[in-house]
Amino acid sequence: MPETRYDVLAIGNAIVDIVAHAEDDFLVNQGLTRGSMRLIDANEADRLYDLMGPAIETSGGCAGNTAAGVASFGGNAAFIGKVADDQFGKLYTHDMRAIGVAFDTGPLAGGAPTARSMILVSPDGERTMNTYLGACQNLTSADIDRDTVAAAAIVYLEGYLWDPPQAKDAFRCAAEFAHDAGRQVSLTLSDSFCVDRFREEFLGLIRDRTVDILFANESEVRALYQTADFETGVHALQKDCRIAAVTMGAEGALVVTHDGVRRVSATPVETIVDTTGAGDLFAAGFLFAHARGMSLTDAARLGTVAAAEVIGHVGARPAVSLADLARQSGFEL
Amino acid sequence: MPETRYDVLAIGNAIVDIVAHAEDDFLVNQGLTRGSMRLIDANEADRLYDLMGPAIETSGGCAGNTAAGVASFGGNAAFIGKVADDQFGKLYTHDMRAIGVAFDTGPLAGGAPTARSMILVSPDGERTMNTYLGACQNLTSADIDRDTVAAAAIVYLEGYLWDPPQAKDAFRCAAEFAHDAGRQVSLTLSDSFCVDRFREEFLGLIRDRTVDILFANESEVRALYQTADFETGVHALQKDCRIAAVTMGAEGALVVTHDGVRRVSATPVETIVDTTGAGDLFAAGFLFAHARGMSLTDAARLGTVAAAEVIGHVGARPAVSLADLARQSGFEL
Repeated sequence: MPETRYDVLAIGNAIVDIVAHAEDDFLVNQGLTRGSMRLIDANEADRLYDLMGPAIETSGGCAGNTAAGVASFGGNAAFIGKVADDQFGKLYTHDMRAIGVAFDTGPLAGGAPTARSMILVSPDGERTMNTYLGACQNLTSADIDRDTVAAAAIVYLEGYLWDPPQAKDAFRCAAEFAHDAGRQVSLTLSDSFCVDRFREEFLGLIRDRTVDILFANESEVRALYQTADFETGVHALQKDCRIAAVTMGAEGALVVTHDGVRRVSATPVETIVDTTGAGDLFAAGFLFAHARGMSLTDAARLGTVAAAEVIGHVGARPAVSLADLARQSGFEL
Repeated sequence: MPETRYDVLAIGNAIVDIVAHAEDDFLVNQGLTRGSMRLIDANEADRLYDLMGPAIETSGGCAGNTAAGVASFGGNAAFIGKVADDQFGKLYTHDMRAIGVAFDTGPLAGGAPTARSMILVSPDGERTMNTYLGACQNLTSADIDRDTVAAAAIVYLEGYLWDPPQAKDAFRCAAEFAHDAGRQVSLTLSDSFCVDRFREEFLGLIRDRTVDILFANESEVRALYQTADFETGVHALQKDCRIAAVTMGAEGALVVTHDGVRRVSATPVETIVDTTGAGDLFAAGFLFAHARGMSLTDAARLGTVAAAEVIGHVGARPAVSLADLARQSGFEL
């Protein structure tokens, strides 16, 4: 096996988040589904932006947030994703490297701009995302560096990679490189609407063991197995997956393996400000711990520490050192 | 007198803030003066950006923050400032308009990019600013619309306008238009280093009554009169200014007029997170109240309400409605 340079290599859509508070009335008037992610084109992006409130900008994207979280824990993280050669692309690249993530995907020149997601945060912290994929449409298997994949203990892929037409080839290519090198492949289902779009393909990836570790939340589990009964979904997961980690918000998380289902509690949060990134940061804690050989339940516990941090403020990336936070929570890193 | 369409027209440098946490060690190693604002060129901006931590981006600039604050109080605000025709310029324009500020200055095409300030926030909330003026260098008197100035009860100008070479003409032009229309002119000294750069000119503006209302903090008062003794500075202000509002951090603020000096207490703050914008938001509350005919001490009190809000979170613009906050604090707006 080649040298392990990275705990986690995350591959996903490189997106700048444009985050604004919004009353639920605004969502209703705009016909938006609370808590969902929808894909929009450049015209709709401009139209919605004109209507939404003043915002802050911050680097985001599922896999990117997870990579940033792993780095914040003191882990070695790398990221592959496609930005454009523009101001938002520079911003995204800076934020990745500044937190310590290796990020060397060549930016797209002369094409679509860097992806942006207009995230409307409701008063209760729920987020509704409106994503213009822009340059992410141009992530291809040519961007997947075999040596980088082989050097990572775990490659982490987001379900949203199924949206840009060429990125699924990049996904399959990365999974193949990883398994060829004896590495593990993990997938987050991203959101229930994404599962609805690509259910059969995701089930295929899970059942043919392309995916070793699956991340999902309750609604994604229900969507994957088209069942209203969460328990039924969890039983199906237990059959289909080697390892699944299922987040349940305030109820904590489940670690699902062939051997059984174990629950860990959520880390308490004083005020939920913005739930964006909760699942991504759970994955960061889980994957970092797993790459470092901790038990699966401790991995899930570390995941809840990271998730609790990120929902306490606006933005999907840690505002403090997760390594410090983990030590304060009794973990020895 | 023409119809009053605006409570406040603010004119200043249109700047996107790039905000990151930094330990004081970093400031020392970079030779930065804690709490200061320094001007940097494009090369230094790139160099420092590469070294600083992951950031969030948000619209800023002294006068722009004040205009946003006036709008958040439910006031009618306008802004004049120069952005470029780029992603940061669009971001800035969006944030202004989205909070309800009239902002129609034509963007600069094909020249320098939109100004950005890399703001390093220390653990105690103190901020150190590194500003690349970019497109702000191109604000000229041609950007000052006489009708807009004449339609504002108060025109508010930032001392930082003295930095870009042509902007001081824009400043003088705006002051002249305002007084021709029987309006009031206010100035913030911006920071003590700015006062050091332009002391004689600022004193000239104050003593020749170009400025009706002056905003300053303690160190700016000391710098203006080159005295270590704050009281001496306040006495000098009393002679020179019709109205001066002096902020003193946790000690509150002074309202200085020929008739006397009155102190108002600071609004208590639980945790100081980021002091960026404290003075700008104090000015917003003060000017809004003054334009609406409230007493000067009530104006200062409203200023402290706004300042307390903005130092409780990252970023220099209000995160909640200042009108709601003012009502909760017993003001009838």
